[in-house]
Amino acid sequence: MKSFKVVPGSIVAPKGFRTSGVFCDIKRLGTGKGSAKGRKRDLALIVSDVDAVAAGMFTTNQVCAAPVKLCLERLHRSRSRARAIVVNSGNANACTGPQGMADAREMAAFTERALNVPKGSVLVGSTGRIGVLLPMDNVRAGIVDAAVHLGATREHAANAAEAIMTSDTKPKQLALEFSLGGRTVRLGGICKGAGMIQPGMSLDGRRPAALHATMLCFLTTDAAISPPLLRKALEEAVAQSFNRITVDGDMSTNDTVLILANGLAGNPLLRVRDSRFTIFQSALNRVCLELAQMIVQDGEGVSRFVTVRVAGARSTREADLAARAVANSALVKTSWHGGDPNWGRIMDALGYSPARVVEEKVDIGYSAPGARRVLWSVRRGQPTPVPFKELCAAVAPKEFDLHINLNLGRATAVIYAADLTEAYVDFNKGDISDPASLGG
Amino acid sequence: MKSFKVVPGSIVAPKGFRTSGVFCDIKRLGTGKGSAKGRKRDLALIVSDVDAVAAGMFTTNQVCAAPVKLCLERLHRSRSRARAIVVNSGNANACTGPQGMADAREMAAFTERALNVPKGSVLVGSTGRIGVLLPMDNVRAGIVDAAVHLGATREHAANAAEAIMTSDTKPKQLALEFSLGGRTVRLGGICKGAGMIQPGMSLDGRRPAALHATMLCFLTTDAAISPPLLRKALEEAVAQSFNRITVDGDMSTNDTVLILANGLAGNPLLRVRDSRFTIFQSALNRVCLELAQMIVQDGEGVSRFVTVRVAGARSTREADLAARAVANSALVKTSWHGGDPNWGRIMDALGYSPARVVEEKVDIGYSAPGARRVLWSVRRGQPTPVPFKELCAAVAPKEFDLHINLNLGRATAVIYAADLTEAYVDFNKGDISDPASLGG
Repeated sequence: MKSFKVVPGSIVAPKGFRTSGVFCDIKRLGTGKGSAKGRKRDLALIVSDVDAVAAGMFTTNQVCAAPVKLCLERLHRSRSRARAIVVNSGNANACTGPQGMADAREMAAFTERALNVPKGSVLVGSTGRIGVLLPMDNVRAGIVDAAVHLGATREHAANAAEAIMTSDTKPKQLALEFSLGGRTVRLGGICKGAGMIQPGMSLDGRRPAALHATMLCFLTTDAAISPPLLRKALEEAVAQSFNRITVDGDMSTNDTVLILANGLAGNPLLRVRDSRFTIFQSALNRVCLELAQMIVQDGEGVSRFVTVRVAGARSTREADLAARAVANSALVKTSWHGGDPNWGRIMDALGYSPARVVEEKVDIGYSAPGARRVLWSVRRGQPTPVPFKELCAAVAPKEFDLHINLNLGRATAVIYAADLTEAYVDFNKGDISDPASLGG
Repeated sequence: MKSFKVVPGSIVAPKGFRTSGVFCDIKRLGTGKGSAKGRKRDLALIVSDVDAVAAGMFTTNQVCAAPVKLCLERLHRSRSRARAIVVNSGNANACTGPQGMADAREMAAFTERALNVPKGSVLVGSTGRIGVLLPMDNVRAGIVDAAVHLGATREHAANAAEAIMTSDTKPKQLALEFSLGGRTVRLGGICKGAGMIQPGMSLDGRRPAALHATMLCFLTTDAAISPPLLRKALEEAVAQSFNRITVDGDMSTNDTVLILANGLAGNPLLRVRDSRFTIFQSALNRVCLELAQMIVQDGEGVSRFVTVRVAGARSTREADLAARAVANSALVKTSWHGGDPNWGRIMDALGYSPARVVEEKVDIGYSAPGARRVLWSVRRGQPTPVPFKELCAAVAPKEFDLHINLNLGRATAVIYAADLTEAYVDFNKGDISDPASLGG
């Protein structure tokens, strides 16, 4: 990891990318209120100066939003090429029928004209409330405004990162710099999450072999890489990051990760068995994992970030199912919120998971994030003599790792999870007197 | 249904049953506090004057409590016969290893001696915190006390109903009277629920074909019925009631339904194709369904009781999976709490359910409990013109039905569900400064 340097500028850190984020009132709050309240930026453009190789991973929800359908169609038709991405927050353009699909097409087409880029070269992302038509006049005005304000400074990237936020409390950005064949390559990303977060994305929107917010992530790189290899790299990175997080167990209609690779770094084209590809893959894995973790840490109402590490399962699929049962149990999540090292609830969740579990074999313990020293609360199904106070201290920090060993095999899985708090409930029950406040 | 009359006395309404509920401090709160606070009754006995036919349905959680294992073993060995049931709250006797199993056996054996009934004729139920050994001195003292106080009045039944409660705010009881072959037969039950509620019980503890709190339910009847028929009747009744409720989606280690049928009504022995059996089955179905609904209505922190009715699925299994995805979605449940008729979240949950769903075919609507007139918010995937205010009014009551038609087939399913509230989170985060307050 020493070969990776964190650099500022996220999506405009790589050569040949410009971005912008503007306010165009997608939620129709009105602009005459005289105050900046609620005027968070809500439309972003991400543009490559030259034609780029593109790949995307999308929700496997059977009810998927118009922009997801459009991206799938366009990536197929363009043979994985794109020039730009237009993204709005505040409206998911999901469950919006034929008009929603027409609106997504118009968003893309209008952006193409505003940027003067070829037809079919713009991809679209949306996040926000489901079932409401996009205010297209506002969207068009936003695209014109965003096209005028494109740039490649940190501020431009920060504006775009803000524009894709919904209930996120802060923007999420990262970029790495590394060397490939003597050339300096950069890879950057922005993402958003907060609620409806348990993505299960695939390259084609079909259900992946493994299980499965709206989470959106947009990645850029100036690496030179072929379309099949970029798809392969993205699939691996997402499988280990965004597809391994859960805030509330709800998979969104809009989950999307898009990456553009414009080749301007001038590195020799990456090949599968090339050690340079390994470096690129590692960089992509790290950017995706760090961004995914930021989503959980900033999830709606989240007060604790817990990495659930299951080992000793009979298969990777069973390890995954066991970890997800624990990570999505309302009773386990509320005990984390209370700082209660309640291993009984963990045992209960393991027991009803579809994974094979033998009570008398289960170990449960805690460690600091990533640390090797585990404080075991349960060994072989039975409580250890570790005092309750020590266990409480282990689950008191804002971040800790939960270790579960089923001792039935060699398979492992990791899920990045959050607690369940009164703040989550309060946020998501919404305020029906103010429909604009109601989330996706 | 006119043939059923609601009668008082629940489990002692049928002939030849006595019960009691006492306080024996299973949670070891101490008795020297000088106040009655926390001194809820915590041990119950249910006794038949004569040998009874018995059947049970138990959690299919792979991690199951000692009393569940003991009941399975005893029902098998006794060929479905029993005389009494001993139940404690405050401690689940789950994940307690060999000592826990020995304690469950001792509870049964001690009860046999206290009641002077044959060896092997007592069944055991427990609910409460997982992973703590039972305070056996207290349990024995409680059994002695309970044996002395047996009786058949309404007060006795109410004491037993209180003794099995954990976080329940009120006791849950019901008894029906009906006629079988000229004889008056009675069927009564008590139950408890509150949290860790999404039972998936089977007769043998193996996972049922369909999917799946601690919920406990104890039923008594003076009907004369054979063991196989009683098992068949219980399986059907539980499949339509307790196995169709969810409070928080967590299946417990201790879920148990037990029924004793002592034959003292003197009806002709029931047979499968007998219309009298149909009457008995209807009575059992109704008692189980009403008790199950009471569990959801009194679930931890519950402010709304929602009956999720899915129709038009390709198969019963898919209807069930679709209904459970909606009923267990954190976002749908918080929207119910907020009185928000958020159909987007319902669509989202349907879309990620394992059931086949086609967005353009889905209807979503609301009605009063059991009413036929449905106010449709979505038809064929698209919002209807019904004003938002009217939809809000439809989800404002404490109880309503949610109607979903997938329009893909003829299969249906019903799930009795609850909202997710700040009170649920607050209750379950517990208070680590007072380990006795921490729930199961």
